[in-house]
Amino acid sequence: MHRIVVDAMGGDLAPDEIVQGAAEASLALTNAEIILVGDATVIGRLLPRLRHDGGRVRVHHAPTFIDMHDKPGEALAQKPDSSIAVAAELVARGEGDALVSAGNTGASVLACAQQWKLVDGITRAALAAVYPTELRRGEKDDPFSLILDVGATVDVVAEDLVGFAVMGSAYAKLVSNNRRPRVALLSNGTEPTKGPAAVVAAHARLLTSDLNFIGNIEGLDIPRGVADVVVTDGFTGNVVLKMLEGVTETVVRLARYAHKERLSWRLGLFALSSAIDQLKELTDWHQYGGAPLLGFAHPFIKAHGRSNARAMTNAIKVAHKALVGDLCGNISRTMAELA
Amino acid sequence: MHRIVVDAMGGDLAPDEIVQGAAEASLALTNAEIILVGDATVIGRLLPRLRHDGGRVRVHHAPTFIDMHDKPGEALAQKPDSSIAVAAELVARGEGDALVSAGNTGASVLACAQQWKLVDGITRAALAAVYPTELRRGEKDDPFSLILDVGATVDVVAEDLVGFAVMGSAYAKLVSNNRRPRVALLSNGTEPTKGPAAVVAAHARLLTSDLNFIGNIEGLDIPRGVADVVVTDGFTGNVVLKMLEGVTETVVRLARYAHKERLSWRLGLFALSSAIDQLKELTDWHQYGGAPLLGFAHPFIKAHGRSNARAMTNAIKVAHKALVGDLCGNISRTMAELA
Repeated sequence: MHRIVVDAMGGDLAPDEIVQGAAEASLALTNAEIILVGDATVIGRLLPRLRHDGGRVRVHHAPTFIDMHDKPGEALAQKPDSSIAVAAELVARGEGDALVSAGNTGASVLACAQQWKLVDGITRAALAAVYPTELRRGEKDDPFSLILDVGATVDVVAEDLVGFAVMGSAYAKLVSNNRRPRVALLSNGTEPTKGPAAVVAAHARLLTSDLNFIGNIEGLDIPRGVADVVVTDGFTGNVVLKMLEGVTETVVRLARYAHKERLSWRLGLFALSSAIDQLKELTDWHQYGGAPLLGFAHPFIKAHGRSNARAMTNAIKVAHKALVGDLCGNISRTMAELA
Repeated sequence: MHRIVVDAMGGDLAPDEIVQGAAEASLALTNAEIILVGDATVIGRLLPRLRHDGGRVRVHHAPTFIDMHDKPGEALAQKPDSSIAVAAELVARGEGDALVSAGNTGASVLACAQQWKLVDGITRAALAAVYPTELRRGEKDDPFSLILDVGATVDVVAEDLVGFAVMGSAYAKLVSNNRRPRVALLSNGTEPTKGPAAVVAAHARLLTSDLNFIGNIEGLDIPRGVADVVVTDGFTGNVVLKMLEGVTETVVRLARYAHKERLSWRLGLFALSSAIDQLKELTDWHQYGGAPLLGFAHPFIKAHGRSNARAMTNAIKVAHKALVGDLCGNISRTMAELA
């Protein structure tokens, strides 16, 4: 039985949508138990009204919670009994196997960093994000790629980047059913000598690894989907991710600016409006199961702050998949082979 | 008389379009002399056939040239008599005031670095790029922003970033007629404490400067045009620039993928095809006068490799503007005030 701990109080739509997502996951997953952490009175009022498997969901009380806009460090110090701190602690003590939260990203990453151990051989944790690309790939014709780190580790050395490559590859294998994910380093040129010292040294080490390492890629290759796993430091990854978030919006506005004059263009835009909506949905990749925090001895899936019940169910399913596929064990074994 | 040295042999369309662009600039500019550096026999065949001001264009012979795909360091070492090396040397010796080239970017930046002095107070050079944004700004309703560095300096310390801010602001003032360009640091969060140590320290120093410093911006703010001058290290700037280059292409393909099914969408795309062409042109900012290499005691305008005659004329005009407005002197004075 895999025990998945869910922060019931984290997220814009918490606790209602979080509890509902957990209830639905209890019906969808076999061999899983869901532990909802949060205000037991509130959850106790919500849960009985929802269809769920009573044998697979239980509540663990935490009297306080951290708000989406609280400062992570201060909030955790002031609220050691907050739902995210208690949830991370349950897993650290061996009373749960994985964590899912839609709450304050900084606070949840910090709670794990304070209480969880890193996988043997991993030097720094990384937050990964899934994004849509032009090319499809893998066995299931999947138009998504993974980029990491997107903000957990801002300054990196070469061995951090090598760890990110191993973790990203293991996650893509598991979640995208892609047996040999193409792993690339993001740099300012494709030559092995391009980039800061950490990127150049990581390139040399990845060439000798068993990963499907395709070398350096450039900014242009990110949306194209040339790689399944894009490896970079948390600073650059964060800038890239936020640029990807704005891409649809920007192009639609630029297009309007470019052709506000002509009637045929206005008609064309009107005919395309449902396509643009569909494009927005496609590029809103937050709905696709959440961002994994990789590198710790337990899986943590960070669902988007705006997650509804469906998004939470998906995030819980991803956490379950990570446990069934022994994600952390795979990362540990690959790091041992590399060393 | 401002003497502008032009590498006649650099660029995909060299020497024909380069020489033609220089010929046109000789008619358009007053108080300027253009020195074409390259194979005197070849240029001597081209120039007489073109309308130009014979008193404002002259040819300086260089027997060899560096190809677009040559390795910069090797090529410069093997060809000290190449057009770009000779052109940079002319300026270094005081026989020219500014340099324009559409040739191999790495080789031309390296030629300047080897032969030119940095402006007093500037620690590292930066290559800047102009890109289109959603918002318009400044006195001339200009929809463009500047980002630097985009590849000259990959590893930076705080004082490098402060220098980039001063140089970018001086250039935007001059070229965009924007009296108080809004300068921002690119980071992974808007708080002053966000980012690598160099960014945090540069933030603190810029707050005390006379620049119109608006603080940190994030990836999403780049295409929006929240800042007129975006300051970052050459690694991140290069990744960002190459992502911007691919944005139209990517969204058009994503849109097609999202709606290949519906007839109304296909008709809509057809109606929009000329708008998409116009958008492509708008986002092909290379036509807008070239990328300045900032930080050296002389202006260098790097025109895009695919530059035609019109693009070269524009790049020569920008170099002229930099001389008339004493760009390098302004940078030097601002750095002295800051120190």
